[in-house]
Amino acid sequence: MLNKVVIFGVGLIGGSFARALKQAGMVGSVVGMGRSAASLARAQELGIIDVIGSDMGQAMQGADLVLLAAPVAQTEAILSALAPHLQPGTVVTDAGSTKSDVVAAAQRALGAKLAQFVPGHPIAGRETNGPDAAIADLYVGKKVVLTPLPENSAADVETVAAAWRACHAIIHRLSAEEHDKVFAAVSHLPHLLAYALVDDIANKPHADLLFQYAASGFRDFTRIAGSSPEMWRDISLANQTALLTELDAYLAQLTGLRARLAAGDGAALEGIYSNAQRARHQWISAIEAAEQPPAQDQAE
Amino acid sequence: MLNKVVIFGVGLIGGSFARALKQAGMVGSVVGMGRSAASLARAQELGIIDVIGSDMGQAMQGADLVLLAAPVAQTEAILSALAPHLQPGTVVTDAGSTKSDVVAAAQRALGAKLAQFVPGHPIAGRETNGPDAAIADLYVGKKVVLTPLPENSAADVETVAAAWRACHAIIHRLSAEEHDKVFAAVSHLPHLLAYALVDDIANKPHADLLFQYAASGFRDFTRIAGSSPEMWRDISLANQTALLTELDAYLAQLTGLRARLAAGDGAALEGIYSNAQRARHQWISAIEAAEQPPAQDQAE
Repeated sequence: MLNKVVIFGVGLIGGSFARALKQAGMVGSVVGMGRSAASLARAQELGIIDVIGSDMGQAMQGADLVLLAAPVAQTEAILSALAPHLQPGTVVTDAGSTKSDVVAAAQRALGAKLAQFVPGHPIAGRETNGPDAAIADLYVGKKVVLTPLPENSAADVETVAAAWRACHAIIHRLSAEEHDKVFAAVSHLPHLLAYALVDDIANKPHADLLFQYAASGFRDFTRIAGSSPEMWRDISLANQTALLTELDAYLAQLTGLRARLAAGDGAALEGIYSNAQRARHQWISAIEAAEQPPAQDQAE
Repeated sequence: MLNKVVIFGVGLIGGSFARALKQAGMVGSVVGMGRSAASLARAQELGIIDVIGSDMGQAMQGADLVLLAAPVAQTEAILSALAPHLQPGTVVTDAGSTKSDVVAAAQRALGAKLAQFVPGHPIAGRETNGPDAAIADLYVGKKVVLTPLPENSAADVETVAAAWRACHAIIHRLSAEEHDKVFAAVSHLPHLLAYALVDDIANKPHADLLFQYAASGFRDFTRIAGSSPEMWRDISLANQTALLTELDAYLAQLTGLRARLAAGDGAALEGIYSNAQRARHQWISAIEAAEQPPAQDQAE
């Protein structure tokens, strides 16, 4: 039971966390903090938060858990602002899509209080945003990756894990570096590739003709290019090193595929396509098996 | 009204065409031809075809319309086999995903009877195949691109267009070369990119870890990598020239994006991402407007 939870950013991610904790009966009072007075008022109206926090000291007073769910570019500023008011016994976590940069920001902002910060990344999202998009079941069956620091106590990590479990999420653990390499490959690179394709087509003189014949395959392939440009600019820069590594590997892969296509090597093309089809099929089968209600948390 | 229609390949594409014509009351009798006796028997059992054709001469006797819906690699062989039996008054069309190679095959196979062949490409598909996948409404609201030859009579083109309109498809016209350039950009290249990404990840030593964290964005981005490797090998080779042109443009785009990422140029990245997001949003809005029931065929 958490008597007091403070949430910075009361949109889809933070608002859904609050709703899920409330539905689970896991929280006494939720304080919302953020830059948009309109969002905070709306979140209060919707019952997502109980109190709109105005004073940092007052908000942090007696807080059990603090979640940072504002845009990641604000992470260091928020941590710096709350650091002087951070009391022993309060655990801070975040929901950022990259972790090495967040850890570096926390080191700078929190100093000696770094041990109270447990970095996290819920793997959930939708194309909508803001308090009205927040739903209690956003995290049901979804993964939350925690990347605990050597400084963290086991009890503080468990406080964060228990809160996410109350949202029916499944807890995984990676190091921050592992996390960033993994998500560069399976999330950040695909976003970059999708944006690049749509931009490439949009800049052609006959773009209108091309878009006229784009169909469902193109629609699915480019869905992630509908995501927020600001957010993905920040993620790209925050995870620059790992993303460059993955992009270079992909460019080498494409260059090899180009040579086979130019040579008319049908057997090689079919080999690559078959390997991809088989790997994807296995992955989908594994997902479908995993989406059965889990008997207990994985990877813990 | 078509008294007799012959369909080579009674799977998703050919079978759905037959079902739609029957539902529209547009066809007397449908003869199915193909390499798989089991598929033909199943198609007959399902009422998709009325007769299983065994003799080419008999099948072509009195046919009004012939649709080639077998794998494109068989196009030339089928056209060569039917050419001696092709009577005046019979119109032949196809459903291949590439058109320049089909036109070249038709020129070789049909010779003086080339005028009777009207190339076409229905822009519809699903991930399932075979006669059991065939449905009467597969083509409702979908585009069918006809790429008529200079040799075709207006009446023969209209015979093919009218059959597709009876399936509630929307008829478009392009030259075979335009068609292949357009689909290289919006369909063939995305398939190649998706296959390349999944193959790239599957070949990494920590592939299992990576796939474990792939989520819905990755799932949509790579959905087309679940397509038939044999079919996409054939399409890649059939449209080699246009596909290489598009792939080279995309490689140049990615190389430019890589330079901006390496330079940490957030404004440039955001510019590319924003342009892509805006273009995709406009495209989706246009699709949604077009999916309203059309008052009449477009582009005719």
